[in-house]
Amino acid sequence: MNIHRSSELDGIQDILDEIAAAMASRTDRGKAAGYIPELACVDTGQFAIAVAGVDGQVFCGGDVGTPFSIQSVSKVFTLTLALGKLGDTIWSRVGREPSGNAFNSIMQLEHEKGRPRNPFINAGAITVADLILAGHAPREAIGEIIRFVRFLADDETIAIDEKVARSELDHGDRNASLAHFMRSFGRLDNPVDHVLGVYFHHCALAMTCRQLAVSGLYLAAGGMNPMTGTRVISAERARRINALMLTCGHYDGSGEFAYRVGLPGKSGVGGAILAVAPGKAAIAVWSPGLDPVGNSKLGAEALEMLAQRTGWSVFGA
Amino acid sequence: MNIHRSSELDGIQDILDEIAAAMASRTDRGKAAGYIPELACVDTGQFAIAVAGVDGQVFCGGDVGTPFSIQSVSKVFTLTLALGKLGDTIWSRVGREPSGNAFNSIMQLEHEKGRPRNPFINAGAITVADLILAGHAPREAIGEIIRFVRFLADDETIAIDEKVARSELDHGDRNASLAHFMRSFGRLDNPVDHVLGVYFHHCALAMTCRQLAVSGLYLAAGGMNPMTGTRVISAERARRINALMLTCGHYDGSGEFAYRVGLPGKSGVGGAILAVAPGKAAIAVWSPGLDPVGNSKLGAEALEMLAQRTGWSVFGA
Amino acid sequence: MNIHRSSELDGIQDILDEIAAAMASRTDRGKAAGYIPELACVDTGQFAIAVAGVDGQVFCGGDVGTPFSIQSVSKVFTLTLALGKLGDTIWSRVGREPSGNAFNSIMQLEHEKGRPRNPFINAGAITVADLILAGHAPREAIGEIIRFVRFLADDETIAIDEKVARSELDHGDRNASLAHFMRSFGRLDNPVDHVLGVYFHHCALAMTCRQLAVSGLYLAAGGMNPMTGTRVISAERARRINALMLTCGHYDGSGEFAYRVGLPGKSGVGGAILAVAPGKAAIAVWSPGLDPVGNSKLGAEALEMLAQRTGWSVFGA
Amino acid sequence: MNIHRSSELDGIQDILDEIAAAMASRTDRGKAAGYIPELACVDTGQFAIAVAGVDGQVFCGGDVGTPFSIQSVSKVFTLTLALGKLGDTIWSRVGREPSGNAFNSIMQLEHEKGRPRNPFINAGAITVADLILAGHAPREAIGEIIRFVRFLADDETIAIDEKVARSELDHGDRNASLAHFMRSFGRLDNPVDHVLGVYFHHCALAMTCRQLAVSGLYLAAGGMNPMTGTRVISAERARRINALMLTCGHYDGSGEFAYRVGLPGKSGVGGAILAVAPGKAAIAVWSPGLDPVGNSKLGAEALEMLAQRTGWSVFGA
Repeated sequence: MNIHRSSELDGIQDILDEIAAAMASRTDRGKAAGYIPELACVDTGQFAIAVAGVDGQVFCGGDVGTPFSIQSVSKVFTLTLALGKLGDTIWSRVGREPSGNAFNSIMQLEHEKGRPRNPFINAGAITVADLILAGHAPREAIGEIIRFVRFLADDETIAIDEKVARSELDHGDRNASLAHFMRSFGRLDNPVDHVLGVYFHHCALAMTCRQLAVSGLYLAAGGMNPMTGTRVISAERARRINALMLTCGHYDGSGEFAYRVGLPGKSGVGGAILAVAPGKAAIAVWSPGLDPVGNSKLGAEALEMLAQRTGWSVFGA
Repeated sequence: MNIHRSSELDGIQDILDEIAAAMASRTDRGKAAGYIPELACVDTGQFAIAVAGVDGQVFCGGDVGTPFSIQSVSKVFTLTLALGKLGDTIWSRVGREPSGNAFNSIMQLEHEKGRPRNPFINAGAITVADLILAGHAPREAIGEIIRFVRFLADDETIAIDEKVARSELDHGDRNASLAHFMRSFGRLDNPVDHVLGVYFHHCALAMTCRQLAVSGLYLAAGGMNPMTGTRVISAERARRINALMLTCGHYDGSGEFAYRVGLPGKSGVGGAILAVAPGKAAIAVWSPGLDPVGNSKLGAEALEMLAQRTGWSVFGA
Repeated sequence: MNIHRSSELDGIQDILDEIAAAMASRTDRGKAAGYIPELACVDTGQFAIAVAGVDGQVFCGGDVGTPFSIQSVSKVFTLTLALGKLGDTIWSRVGREPSGNAFNSIMQLEHEKGRPRNPFINAGAITVADLILAGHAPREAIGEIIRFVRFLADDETIAIDEKVARSELDHGDRNASLAHFMRSFGRLDNPVDHVLGVYFHHCALAMTCRQLAVSGLYLAAGGMNPMTGTRVISAERARRINALMLTCGHYDGSGEFAYRVGLPGKSGVGGAILAVAPGKAAIAVWSPGLDPVGNSKLGAEALEMLAQRTGWSVFGA
Repeated sequence: MNIHRSSELDGIQDILDEIAAAMASRTDRGKAAGYIPELACVDTGQFAIAVAGVDGQVFCGGDVGTPFSIQSVSKVFTLTLALGKLGDTIWSRVGREPSGNAFNSIMQLEHEKGRPRNPFINAGAITVADLILAGHAPREAIGEIIRFVRFLADDETIAIDEKVARSELDHGDRNASLAHFMRSFGRLDNPVDHVLGVYFHHCALAMTCRQLAVSGLYLAAGGMNPMTGTRVISAERARRINALMLTCGHYDGSGEFAYRVGLPGKSGVGGAILAVAPGKAAIAVWSPGLDPVGNSKLGAEALEMLAQRTGWSVFGA
């Protein structure tokens, strides 16, 4: 890895402070996700950002001490775990194309006979949970996922917010519908309640921005965690996960995010976004208010500012 | 622009020769587009590749002297032209999201009340043609597009294949349907036959791989044509067009192309693909056989080889 | 035909007077079709009704002297004409199922590869126009349709409102889109402008309620016109057209019309409805204000009243 | 009710014998429903027909002693029961339009925000089961449905095939998906497993053709059971249920059934069809082989023969 430590991260703390200040003054902050009380009641006044450089430095801005529910950002980690366990065979079960369509989800799933378009929409991540389960008890699969994320973050304190997980389960009819729908096409190996148990638990992982940025650092650093010196996945696989994040990471706002920010990213309805500047840094932002498509409103704006200030777009200087 | 001339393009001719040899030996070459006789009868045994570096060097391999119909690759140039004439106001008329769905086109257009998802699907490019027309005669708009492409390629010999253009018109019911559909929602300003006249003509532009690679070089070189030293568009706009190419450039195979090749690209049913390695080079490939999604089969394979040999993915080293 | 003249039509004039009075007092009358000026400016205060008994008696109420544009009601007559010319071979070109879906039309047409669901949606009627054309000049086909409707009505004064026909053509992008779409699947034999010329002209037929009721009488009278003693079609074919009217005659309001009125019927956006009480009478109503689905609001209410007063439902006493 | 006993049912036994003989000789008999073993293993060589006249006479042909799973035909009885308990308020929860589209079910449900199109598609009947449950235990609701059907048939021996009900539950992912989907829109009041328990049980009702024809007789006889002299529903409600059966009773083959047979009918995947000749008779047919749309192949053919021989179409003599 041929990195230019000084030049790439020079002045980054000033940029983060500027971004945090700009975001603190915004009045139009989006709306928190409303489908479970645990997310609906989160204060949308909050904002945090962290940049973890491939040289191991970490910079933060905003409410960096507050843990949040990473929700769908966890799909990046379960995909990585499933690829590590099962390799490219998983692609027989899930596609690699953007769903690209506001009226997607179950209609598209019907058209394509229960095979999800990509691992980052709900149906695709449920499929990945089914693959990780592989006949084991949900408790074991959940344990494996937690251990993997702790390994990525090099932090044994990361845990699941059980209250969020239970609440997801109580309000999980849409996901239950997707899971039963796929199962009706013979696309799930495990019982629906097992699969959803795993899925809802990994979505309920709670992390700070610093923890999330470090967890995603392997995607910026050619598959290695430069802090621990351990290899997570091959460089090629890291590139490919980045490609999936860029085309599919923001639901039906993926094109817009690529256009405005120019970096691979994955959002969650808790208000988090993990973005990757390959060869440079992993960036985590969090602000609970969402835009109409379901992505963090200030999170995306902050990343757009960061990309402009640093010139970190993958699409050119 | 901080380019490393020697390192980036060192050995590129050997790589192109290797790719051309590998492609020559392939027996499974896809099928030529069948909807007009002029494309259906093209020999699928052909293959060409050209790499235009941001330092002005051009390297070629395969049947480099043969001109071909660039078809939808021309949509990159008309989008650039429309942005230059009208600026970001064009985004009120066309979106920036992948259509992402095999059953898209007119159904999606109905759902979204006649507003195309992005400028690279047919409906979106027809909208761009309508914007370029802007009340003028089709002949004038076509002339303007030709002059613009000649300026990009720095080559006054580039021309439209009138036989192809006429044949498109004769077999243009699907596009006529899209155009009338959008017009029924008040989404076209000019008469349908004028708009389609412009659209079919720019799709019928004939170029060699060398001409096409040079024409796209501004996208790799921050909006400048490094050969002529003229600015085509701003660096930011070049990045953004690259982002659109990456998420939307290969119809419902865009995710797959990003995953396998890792470069922004735009394909055409004539078998051409224009790809961009930002800061390094523009690459044109051509082979008339298509995969089931409608993208050049050997073209995509050649670009995958090139990306592997050179490490030019935008998603990491 | 075993008809009970006296009992069936006894007191019918009183019922029509009662209905006309009730409709005159309605304030919520729907909105006239807005897509062409010729229909948009029609006074929604108007209402007319006519009942033509299978014994040859005709009863009227309301503004019976005013001619109106029958629009899609004409599809019943062109279907009858096409069946007479070509027989059941037409069913290879068009289906017999309700489209049943508010987001239908072109999306459904895409899903079913250009074959319309039934002859009463626009795409289906355009197909029927193509079948009647059969390579002849539009003028001849239009002439044939006019002669056929004059024969049904036994009235040589019936004519096409040329102003309406031309206006339809000027605002016909949606239908042009449907026609080109079908043609792109090889589903039209004649040029799109010929087919649409025929289609727009037969939709522009102008008739009074009395003329329309008499024209539809063959459907109530086993395929015969009891006034002239001539056979139009076989009794079986008349039954089958009635079946199609019941399942498909009111677009996405067909189920509701069957539920409330209980008679086969066909509506047009001009505000006309032709209903059939088999063995008893044909009924024409007209009131230009439409409900949200596009069917005459007062027309349907008047028919519901008539069915209740007379007990003419096909679904039981 | 003004019925003509002698003329309507004269010679009916001969017709049924002729039909049974014709059906016995058919070699192309369709395929039994394959989704549960209990239905898949039923011998498609079987056929039965029964006609219950409004005068109380019952005529039979074929394998009349064999009970079968009535499956979706039960939806007519649960709709009748729900209307009796809750009146027209049920229409706020379910529509009255044909779904009319081969790719319907969950996609349409998504488009219409979880409100089923009509009570005869699965989603609609699940909604009706939810309405009947009304907070009670599934066992009680199932008991109420059984008692209602026994009352209709005037036969205390009618029962649910528990093996079929359990098997439905084991293979019920598609229906579970529909139920969870509707619940995610707030469209179900009771827990999904309770609702599906009721739904799968009433679908597993086992009856002979004679029992089924008598059960449906109230629809032919103005809402009365002429055998017991008890009123089931009003004459108007009987007409309206007949209208729903005609437009929606055969899934995406409803238009075809109306066209060919001309009578209201409801089919089930067990191979049964209940048809209604208003004012004349209720007819039950059964043959386990299905056509591609999922309706009994020989059942529909037998009813077409019967309608031709008797002239019982609702659409004219």
